Amino acid sequence: QTAPPSAPASDTTRAEPSTLIKKRPEALQNVHMNLLLRSSLEIPDGDKQSSMRLNEARFEVLGTIVPDLDFRVRYRLNRSQAQRDLDNAPGSLDIASVNYKFGTDKKWSVNVGKQAAYAGSWEFETNPTYEYQYSEFVNFQTNLFMMGIRLGYQADKNHGFFLQLHNTYNNAFNTTHTAAGYGADGLKGSKTPMGVYASWLGKMFDQKLHTFWSYDISQYASGKTNHAVALGNKVVLNKLKGYLDLQWAAMAVDYVNIASPSINKYRQKLHPDFAPVFARDVNYKGAVLRLDYEFIPGWFLTTKGIFESASQTKGNSVFGKNFRENIGLLAGLEYKPIASQNMKLFGYYYNNQVKYRNVIADANATQRSGLFAVGVLYLVNAF
Amino acid sequence: QTAPPSAPASDTTRAEPSTLIKKRPEALQNVHMNLLLRSSLEIPDGDKQSSMRLNEARFEVLGTIVPDLDFRVRYRLNRSQAQRDLDNAPGSLDIASVNYKFGTDKKWSVNVGKQAAYAGSWEFETNPTYEYQYSEFVNFQTNLFMMGIRLGYQADKNHGFFLQLHNTYNNAFNTTHTAAGYGADGLKGSKTPMGVYASWLGKMFDQKLHTFWSYDISQYASGKTNHAVALGNKVVLNKLKGYLDLQWAAMAVDYVNIASPSINKYRQKLHPDFAPVFARDVNYKGAVLRLDYEFIPGWFLTTKGIFESASQTKGNSVFGKNFRENIGLLAGLEYKPIASQNMKLFGYYYNNQVKYRNVIADANATQRSGLFAVGVLYLVNAF
Amino acid sequence: QTAPPSAPASDTTRAEPSTLIKKRPEALQNVHMNLLLRSSLEIPDGDKQSSMRLNEARFEVLGTIVPDLDFRVRYRLNRSQAQRDLDNAPGSLDIASVNYKFGTDKKWSVNVGKQAAYAGSWEFETNPTYEYQYSEFVNFQTNLFMMGIRLGYQADKNHGFFLQLHNTYNNAFNTTHTAAGYGADGLKGSKTPMGVYASWLGKMFDQKLHTFWSYDISQYASGKTNHAVALGNKVVLNKLKGYLDLQWAAMAVDYVNIASPSINKYRQKLHPDFAPVFARDVNYKGAVLRLDYEFIPGWFLTTKGIFESASQTKGNSVFGKNFRENIGLLAGLEYKPIASQNMKLFGYYYNNQVKYRNVIADANATQRSGLFAVGVLYLVNAF
Repeated sequence: QTAPPSAPASDTTRAEPSTLIKKRPEALQNVHMNLLLRSSLEIPDGDKQSSMRLNEARFEVLGTIVPDLDFRVRYRLNRSQAQRDLDNAPGSLDIASVNYKFGTDKKWSVNVGKQAAYAGSWEFETNPTYEYQYSEFVNFQTNLFMMGIRLGYQADKNHGFFLQLHNTYNNAFNTTHTAAGYGADGLKGSKTPMGVYASWLGKMFDQKLHTFWSYDISQYASGKTNHAVALGNKVVLNKLKGYLDLQWAAMAVDYVNIASPSINKYRQKLHPDFAPVFARDVNYKGAVLRLDYEFIPGWFLTTKGIFESASQTKGNSVFGKNFRENIGLLAGLEYKPIASQNMKLFGYYYNNQVKYRNVIADANATQRSGLFAVGVLYLVNAF
Repeated sequence: QTAPPSAPASDTTRAEPSTLIKKRPEALQNVHMNLLLRSSLEIPDGDKQSSMRLNEARFEVLGTIVPDLDFRVRYRLNRSQAQRDLDNAPGSLDIASVNYKFGTDKKWSVNVGKQAAYAGSWEFETNPTYEYQYSEFVNFQTNLFMMGIRLGYQADKNHGFFLQLHNTYNNAFNTTHTAAGYGADGLKGSKTPMGVYASWLGKMFDQKLHTFWSYDISQYASGKTNHAVALGNKVVLNKLKGYLDLQWAAMAVDYVNIASPSINKYRQKLHPDFAPVFARDVNYKGAVLRLDYEFIPGWFLTTKGIFESASQTKGNSVFGKNFRENIGLLAGLEYKPIASQNMKLFGYYYNNQVKYRNVIADANATQRSGLFAVGVLYLVNAF
Repeated sequence: QTAPPSAPASDTTRAEPSTLIKKRPEALQNVHMNLLLRSSLEIPDGDKQSSMRLNEARFEVLGTIVPDLDFRVRYRLNRSQAQRDLDNAPGSLDIASVNYKFGTDKKWSVNVGKQAAYAGSWEFETNPTYEYQYSEFVNFQTNLFMMGIRLGYQADKNHGFFLQLHNTYNNAFNTTHTAAGYGADGLKGSKTPMGVYASWLGKMFDQKLHTFWSYDISQYASGKTNHAVALGNKVVLNKLKGYLDLQWAAMAVDYVNIASPSINKYRQKLHPDFAPVFARDVNYKGAVLRLDYEFIPGWFLTTKGIFESASQTKGNSVFGKNFRENIGLLAGLEYKPIASQNMKLFGYYYNNQVKYRNVIADANATQRSGLFAVGVLYLVNAF
């Protein structure tokens, strides 16, 4: 809903045949331009204002200049281009990277520049044009687009292994605290605010099951290490497509700031002069299930369920297990009028609840919201 | 002068033959890239600083991917890309839309996404590269580029009829008040801050007369409805081109904020502690006349006159008729050195006056400004 | 390090043959798209945070539409697109200009729009993809990209002469003071805040020596005139390339704000209630030497030395000669794996010192910083 992502693992944009261009001229044989558009009329529950919204507007240029050397640049047209201070890249720039294949049979590759996190999430891997509503894992918990170096080894047609060195966040330590309005709480920035993803992309059972599993270790505050595991599983059948993503993360400091606001609110209720901080030792876990079924050629039923929770159990914390839960349910209908084009008309209803348990519930009421949307999406492969 | 617009109705960019490309390759047959550039040395009257200014820098990609399905994206290179809060689109993005033709003889069309207002104004319809100075109708009164859905019916070669559902403004109700520094004045945002344009585009008398007439009804504050009529009339002869645009609008609340500052100033003079607000029940009317005459092949005389006024007559308001007038006069010379290219060297003088009448004049002095400019404009059809 | 520049004088981007495109289609014969990318892992000395940084991300479209008429647009993807108030152009837009050749043998040319300063600096002339660290002359002292009109006369194959009328800065007088937090100090903005570069581009000794010399005179504050001389000298041999740039400038008012902070600090130490201002009558001089040596085919040793100083001698100023010095030293190694592509892997170490002398040193300590970086650069000629 907030920060839609990209297609890191198996981007299909380049592979699709163009119905327009029968005889592609040599100059454009290997250069491609795409536009990612989605707009909808959104009608929220309650007294929130309805509006037509530009959900997606991204522009992409990618290509292969010489064999084994690729480039890719993708940027959002509706985000500020001002640079962040740690990585000198703007929030509007999803990807600006170069990929080089090498070694025997070109099994090795190295990808350098701004790139998508290689987190095991098919939700995030799906082109953002096609994902209507995101989990908090994608929206807030994962630093989606960041500077990195990704080393890959494609063992065979079906299995690839990757190591991705990455900046933990895109802003400097002090900037992150200032932006949240939180104190440093006795912490200081890590000298090396970076992390590493170890990822496996697999295809099994006649390429019907796709796995995307990852483990990440990272630091942001000095001496405070985060761990995260994400297990993405996708099924691609004839009329049915879907994924089940599972994730678990242990945040030494909750810089993703999903659970911290509710904890701060609770503490301020007890002690009105409590100065808000990023909470310590928060654990997140989550499951996201999406299923798309083509019930008549060109007509799709799409459903998505999101269940995520936050816990704090270290040192017998009063907050305990699952003190905050985020539950999202989406059901929608899609129509694809032109078989060759990635254009769909759609309508969906999305219901979201954020619930609090245990002592946290005393200071934080359940938040409910609903949204009905109709619109059009179009991934334009200009050339 | 402030926010130049686009070419909604009869965009000629795509139709023009390229002298460069004799044999267009198939891949580019239906994809086009344009650059809109205008720069000038502006020398204002009085002690305001002279400077060379980048008047226009826009980038456009448009095309037809499959028959009847078009896309168009255009953005300004000199506006912030940060998104507005009601529509999630930035001020820099003029257009990001998809157009689909359907029905018998493809007479029907639907256009979805960020698009130009289908207001009956040839001034606004002219490509912004070619309009040096704008009326307040275009600069402030009309929400030029907004999210919308436009349904069209082309009755025959000469007459088209359109209904355009649109967001009234691009920012949410509270954001608009905060940005102006005004109080809400007892109002709240409409649940559905939208409007509808009903428009007619006609060609008559052997296509010498082009009409573009529109009626708009919209809401922004709850229960406060605005009405607007705009009648654009264009003449295209051999050596003479020109348009006369007439418009009238009744703003239940003056969110366009053209007349409100002078009313607030008057009220603050009477009551120094008066908190400024958007005025109620302001009527605008205006006429814009532009004439371009090619007196020698490649040499053009261009003139433009703007007359606009604001009134408040409801409830025997003390402000009365035409309490604020905006008068602009422009005369210039253009030279087009290369017949095949939309490039012109130009020079013009523009004089502007804003006058106040009745009691408003006690608190608001007449503002006069003059500007001499020389420069170059170029609508580049790259491919 | 801060604001990398462009290739004004002898841009080679267009001239390079593409290995990809053997038979360029006519439509693209004269239109080109380039991407400029550089990313690196930067490890600073001391406790500053390490990070991977997007050093460069620029996008360029340029072409020749009809003989003798060229356009060029280049913009940075990691700077805000918000417009500056004097020139209406954003910091993200390097170039948006049109160039027209005319006269006998097309020896004359005129270039209008946003463009690169025609300052005699090969450091600045080098495509920013290739310059790792800049002198203060390029980073702060020169207004690199500004609105202008450049008249050129190419006397013969080897010698060109240019006059470039330009805006002195891109923001208005008051905006510059507000942004710095300085008072106006009794000055007011010039009615014509502009300047003129007179430049000579020469090639000598069988095109082995390239000269780029310029003189600039400009005004920003009313009645306060700046003068600057820059003498760029480049040597292009078989395995060795390099340049020696020399520059000298007399700033009536130090709007470039390189030396003023140290003077303000000194004055505030003497008089704690001193309100900071832009210093008067500051002279800058500098020398930049870069040498690149290809010691094995594809392997390059690159070195750069920067020496710059500020003086204030007018009226027997207590600050005197060279009261502030900026010294930078860089040594690095580059590897170009694919002969046809402007892609390099690189590593370098950069050491920088800013030293103060005389009374200024009492209030300003020497600043030392070091940086180790490894990364990849790639100037992609997409088509």
